[in-house]
Amino acid sequence: MQQDGVLVINAGSSSIKFSLYLSEEGIKPILTCKGQVEGIDVSPHFLVKAPTGQVLHERRWLDSPDISHEDLFKHLIDWVEDHLGEVRLRAAGHRVVHGGAVYSAPMLITDALLDELEELVPLAPLHQPHNLAPIRALRQVHPDLIQVACFDTAFHRSNPWQAQTFALPRRLTMEGVKRYGFHGLSYEYIARTLKAYAPATARAKVVAAHLGNGTSMCAIDSGKSVASSLGFTALDGLPMGTRSGALDPGVVLYLMQQKGMSAAEIEDLLYRKSGLLGVSGVSSDMRVLLDSLEPRAAEAVELFVYRIARELGSLAAALGGLDALVFTGGIGENAARIRTRVCALSQWLGLKIDEEANEQNAPLISALDSRVSIWVIPTDEEMMIAKHTREVLRALRSRGEHI
Amino acid sequence: MQQDGVLVINAGSSSIKFSLYLSEEGIKPILTCKGQVEGIDVSPHFLVKAPTGQVLHERRWLDSPDISHEDLFKHLIDWVEDHLGEVRLRAAGHRVVHGGAVYSAPMLITDALLDELEELVPLAPLHQPHNLAPIRALRQVHPDLIQVACFDTAFHRSNPWQAQTFALPRRLTMEGVKRYGFHGLSYEYIARTLKAYAPATARAKVVAAHLGNGTSMCAIDSGKSVASSLGFTALDGLPMGTRSGALDPGVVLYLMQQKGMSAAEIEDLLYRKSGLLGVSGVSSDMRVLLDSLEPRAAEAVELFVYRIARELGSLAAALGGLDALVFTGGIGENAARIRTRVCALSQWLGLKIDEEANEQNAPLISALDSRVSIWVIPTDEEMMIAKHTREVLRALRSRGEHI
Repeated sequence: MQQDGVLVINAGSSSIKFSLYLSEEGIKPILTCKGQVEGIDVSPHFLVKAPTGQVLHERRWLDSPDISHEDLFKHLIDWVEDHLGEVRLRAAGHRVVHGGAVYSAPMLITDALLDELEELVPLAPLHQPHNLAPIRALRQVHPDLIQVACFDTAFHRSNPWQAQTFALPRRLTMEGVKRYGFHGLSYEYIARTLKAYAPATARAKVVAAHLGNGTSMCAIDSGKSVASSLGFTALDGLPMGTRSGALDPGVVLYLMQQKGMSAAEIEDLLYRKSGLLGVSGVSSDMRVLLDSLEPRAAEAVELFVYRIARELGSLAAALGGLDALVFTGGIGENAARIRTRVCALSQWLGLKIDEEANEQNAPLISALDSRVSIWVIPTDEEMMIAKHTREVLRALRSRGEHI
Repeated sequence: MQQDGVLVINAGSSSIKFSLYLSEEGIKPILTCKGQVEGIDVSPHFLVKAPTGQVLHERRWLDSPDISHEDLFKHLIDWVEDHLGEVRLRAAGHRVVHGGAVYSAPMLITDALLDELEELVPLAPLHQPHNLAPIRALRQVHPDLIQVACFDTAFHRSNPWQAQTFALPRRLTMEGVKRYGFHGLSYEYIARTLKAYAPATARAKVVAAHLGNGTSMCAIDSGKSVASSLGFTALDGLPMGTRSGALDPGVVLYLMQQKGMSAAEIEDLLYRKSGLLGVSGVSSDMRVLLDSLEPRAAEAVELFVYRIARELGSLAAALGGLDALVFTGGIGENAARIRTRVCALSQWLGLKIDEEANEQNAPLISALDSRVSIWVIPTDEEMMIAKHTREVLRALRSRGEHI
């Protein structure tokens, strides 16, 4: 059976994270190493580790702001090909935050697609350009590489239109001011994993709570997203580490009209100074807050939990019921106290936690007599991208293309 | 028993509505007439009708932009005192939109209180000044009149702090950027009326849906508000006639940064061009939309219903369960189809409507086997203000003041 190297890339404003997988039909892609390039545009630092944590490669470019994206990717590809030995690097899968209203599945990257994705930059100016830059660089450095765009929005395109539409004038909706939802790769991974763990549950009404630095929740009916808490941007819904989550739009008007704040200042406030950090005044890190003795840290935690419980009710309404709740993300996977509090506030929905299983971060943490099953499933967005990329490779080969 | 005249005033930017009650201990205040002054600052038109609809008095000041608030109130008071005959006009109760974070009950108006309420103008610049102007005018024209401020925010001050707090930096919360909730006089009236209809239900977990031109929902536990859909301003929560309701704050940033819209333009968009009007492109009036054959009119109705059902789930979470749902407001009291659709989407919560009772706008419209009881209760904010004003009069008299 043919073995392929599949590179997964998750690029942000100042760093590029990547994971390298060995892909072979019939078995789950195998992670061989993870790495990142930090300090792009300043003094890039390239570091690769084995899944064990062992450092495989490291390089620094000191005071080299002029090193191009292409140069960095050349170095990355050279190292990857060297590392893979006999196995050929066939494809790169990219996390792309925005696939607009159209793309509900991963897409093979072409010039036309890149142009389309470029047009979505105004919808996600903080992320989309950084997701597209590595794609362009890789096309320069390695034109033969199959590249696949995996969208954070795609999984939610199955939402009914009511869940995607703001009560705004039609012309704004038509031009793209809609609820897209994000964290879709995480939710898709959760939906598929739940199908492996508990197929009957995966066919039922599930809410997944991705509680990490970014935080959102998603209502999944028979494996398909029907609603989520993130809307047009990554600001909506639940409070996050430093982001406000849902906010009366009148607050933004107040900040403009009464406080004379500029758009840039409001953006900085809502993206970087709000959320757990803003409420606690202590930290954006849930671990720090849970260990803190500051009353305001406890209040930030309680507000976070309260908003999750409210959103759970709202998403159960989108589903017309609730059969299972899945916790994932850094907080969802590790913070047993957060799970306990959320489930305590949600007893009315039929949730009853098994505290012993919860303490152990076991996959199934509901009590035997809980009407709703409660799960802890570690998410793996990179693995989801690797699988998607492999599926595109497979489709190309089944069409007879020689790759 | 002493009979008092109690004048209830609800003042907006271009019109002042008033209702005159006869108040006597032990019986419900009796409405004697309703009136309004329209076209203030242009060409005022004064009109009073009996509860039967018969016109009792009418006067126009043509092209008299210079007529003062004091002059208008002098005319109003003179007419009222003449109309009351033997009965003395003792008090005026005012609807005041904002009572800030402090006032959880109606307040006797004093100079100090007026100054405090003036300080809240930045929190409600579109309404608060118009609510306070008549109070000042009446103090000039009739200094002996007892005046009472009844706040739209007061009923929600029983909300737990989590329901009142945005995930924003503390200094903003401290300065007043909080979730106040509005329509409080309507919800208080509903809570009291439900207590008269069904005392056991009134002691349980109730969601009231005030569906009118302004639309909101409120979670009431044992008669006390614990959460509501309106937040810092009248923009949050459900879509309304021309208002957007809840909106990802990132949309406002997009309108500023990508569309170059000013605060005034955004305010105009979100307050006057969104909601049912924006989505349908047809009308802000639910009656027109329900009669329309335009697909977009039907979509606006469906979005309205969907968002109500989502909010109902969220508010049930705030309550930790649901025992009753009350519809009120112009749409809530009259649009049987809206109630049918909301209840259909909310079957999962145990709602089952009795279609015959629903068609008749009966007070109790749930089926016998509905786990949650469903009610239609006409709201009466003016009556609530009259009752509050009478309670303040009674308290003053019980303190021995000769009024």
